[in-house]
Amino acid sequence: MAIKQNSKPLDGILVLEFCQYLSGPSAGLRLADMGARVIKIENPNKGDLCRILPIKDQWVGDNSLLFHTINRNKESYIANLKSDTELESVKKLIAKADVLIHNFRPGVMEKLGLGFDQLDAVNSRLVYAEISGYGSHGPWAKKPGQDLLLQAMSGLMYASGDDQDAPTPFGLAIGDMLCGAQVVQAVLAGLLYRNRKNKAVKVQVSLLESLIDFQFELFTTYFTSGKLPQRSAKNNAHSLLAAPYGIYQTKDSYIALAMIPLEDLKITLNCAGLMAYDQSMAFSKRDEIKAVLAIFFKHETAGFWMEKFLREGIWATELKNWKTLKKEEGYKQMELEQLIEIAKDRTIKTNRCPIRIDGAVLWGASPAPELGQHTDQIQKEFAL
Amino acid sequence: MAIKQNSKPLDGILVLEFCQYLSGPSAGLRLADMGARVIKIENPNKGDLCRILPIKDQWVGDNSLLFHTINRNKESYIANLKSDTELESVKKLIAKADVLIHNFRPGVMEKLGLGFDQLDAVNSRLVYAEISGYGSHGPWAKKPGQDLLLQAMSGLMYASGDDQDAPTPFGLAIGDMLCGAQVVQAVLAGLLYRNRKNKAVKVQVSLLESLIDFQFELFTTYFTSGKLPQRSAKNNAHSLLAAPYGIYQTKDSYIALAMIPLEDLKITLNCAGLMAYDQSMAFSKRDEIKAVLAIFFKHETAGFWMEKFLREGIWATELKNWKTLKKEEGYKQMELEQLIEIAKDRTIKTNRCPIRIDGAVLWGASPAPELGQHTDQIQKEFAL
Repeated sequence: MAIKQNSKPLDGILVLEFCQYLSGPSAGLRLADMGARVIKIENPNKGDLCRILPIKDQWVGDNSLLFHTINRNKESYIANLKSDTELESVKKLIAKADVLIHNFRPGVMEKLGLGFDQLDAVNSRLVYAEISGYGSHGPWAKKPGQDLLLQAMSGLMYASGDDQDAPTPFGLAIGDMLCGAQVVQAVLAGLLYRNRKNKAVKVQVSLLESLIDFQFELFTTYFTSGKLPQRSAKNNAHSLLAAPYGIYQTKDSYIALAMIPLEDLKITLNCAGLMAYDQSMAFSKRDEIKAVLAIFFKHETAGFWMEKFLREGIWATELKNWKTLKKEEGYKQMELEQLIEIAKDRTIKTNRCPIRIDGAVLWGASPAPELGQHTDQIQKEFAL
Repeated sequence: MAIKQNSKPLDGILVLEFCQYLSGPSAGLRLADMGARVIKIENPNKGDLCRILPIKDQWVGDNSLLFHTINRNKESYIANLKSDTELESVKKLIAKADVLIHNFRPGVMEKLGLGFDQLDAVNSRLVYAEISGYGSHGPWAKKPGQDLLLQAMSGLMYASGDDQDAPTPFGLAIGDMLCGAQVVQAVLAGLLYRNRKNKAVKVQVSLLESLIDFQFELFTTYFTSGKLPQRSAKNNAHSLLAAPYGIYQTKDSYIALAMIPLEDLKITLNCAGLMAYDQSMAFSKRDEIKAVLAIFFKHETAGFWMEKFLREGIWATELKNWKTLKKEEGYKQMELEQLIEIAKDRTIKTNRCPIRIDGAVLWGASPAPELGQHTDQIQKEFAL
């Protein structure tokens, strides 16, 4: 069993994770980092297919580095859910659990006899979380729930990049991550509900609903104005915000400018090309204003501009990449990294949980389990 | 007071929101939608500055449309925290609260006497959530915690766009949204902890930690390989994934292709240019493979390609924007929109909470409060 340090908020909570890839497992990871005991229920064949999903050809033994980072701090139990005896054992485990999370396609758990209503006789206090691509009903219910495809369906690809650019994906699995975060919210609210009402609770989240929630500004603006939000022609960073909001190239690197009143910018920069514009034009003329700034900032270095901005308290910063960020004292003092001991001779370095409780970082450095690593022990412990 | 429908998971929970803009208020909104009573504590002057933050010049009365969408389903109480008597009233309210959330800069709440330790005598069972840009200590603690600036600091701008593109921001306030989601997680875990241990709990989240957590794949890959993740030269959608992952232009519109084995693609497309590549080259030669596909897909329409992909069960989809998505039957059946009645003659349409509980959508259609709208009533109710 994974070793837990000190006292954590979710100590004593048992979570069963019937999940693959990212959305469900990222939820399981957060619950584990906050103190829950999380057991992955995997099929004996290949288990969570994320084990063999290569990102940039990085591997740790037989498992992908990606699998390791999402599934640290968990246990693995293998069961063939199509075998009656193994299914019975799993049900005995469910009887002891507080939370079950699954991200199978709609109908799969029901076919196995593991639907929410079917489990009421097994555990009448279970918090049952269901993740899908498009909800459990309707014409889209059976479509594959993959992050990029959901980004494509949700309109999100018209949020980044400039106006004449092709649709621009968010370069990370934003749907999975947001959906996973909402599963954690729903599960924890479900536990509070269960504790108060002494009843089982079903919670559901889908990638599409998560991505539409994320775009609430864009959807509401579209509903209200009837016009599609439009990215700025250059230096777009948010299609609904006025100039100068965006990223600008300088003589040597890039700077980011947040919401800054044009008058403040005029005083600070002494840029002749800006003088024709006042705050009332900051949105309607943002393409022109941004074009003026884009040329102006190229004349001097990022350090030159930042010295002016800092002196005037203007919201701007120089861009970092992962390498330059990592060298900063501010980064180091935040203790953002943790080492995970995979074997005696192998460690990997990864991020930690972003939440602090009572001033302390929530470390969770137990390695991801090998497929079925904890099956025997869990069988004994729970008399399965 | 906002009218609550039926029974919800967080009924009976009182949340005080000392927050502005997006990160904290988005957390308050989620808690409100799940049943909590959320009271914004605002200064009598302008209140939450989001009230006057214009997005695309859209207003609802004196408040921005943006403010309305983030602060629906809440109440507003005004207090000048620099007045001793008004501060005392606020402390009486804190004594009755379950949760306090603030996103002031580090030290501000402490100066007012509203720091976590200072409130122990006021409420020894309070869950106290603190949101910052860069944590409460260290050389960056006083830097402004604004979304775009944090994206710029965190490396995230090298995740989207193609390899030779300028740094490309995520076109929405991703740091605020993720951080807000994690505040909800931490608050709910804190409530479970408080209920079990009968003690006050402090939780902390920062925009930087949220954005680094979001990039766990990129950071871990960098830590392990020592090389900066590189966006693909063309059609990038995730810098760590192999071809064909990305968006492709067709004769008439765009299609998205997820992780697809090259062999499957070869069989389905019968594309001569692909024949030189096998799966072992899918990452190392991804720029070449994507270039071949980018030319190939332009010869036919999205509908032509999608018919082939659907027949073979290949993970692909045609892109939608907000307008075309909204017309789809699948979208309509998911009931993703809600109407908020601002006044007798004015409604706005917005999204709803993405979480379902016990099969039911969590509607939350009470309008955002006018500044101080509930002050008198709350004073009476709590004898402040």
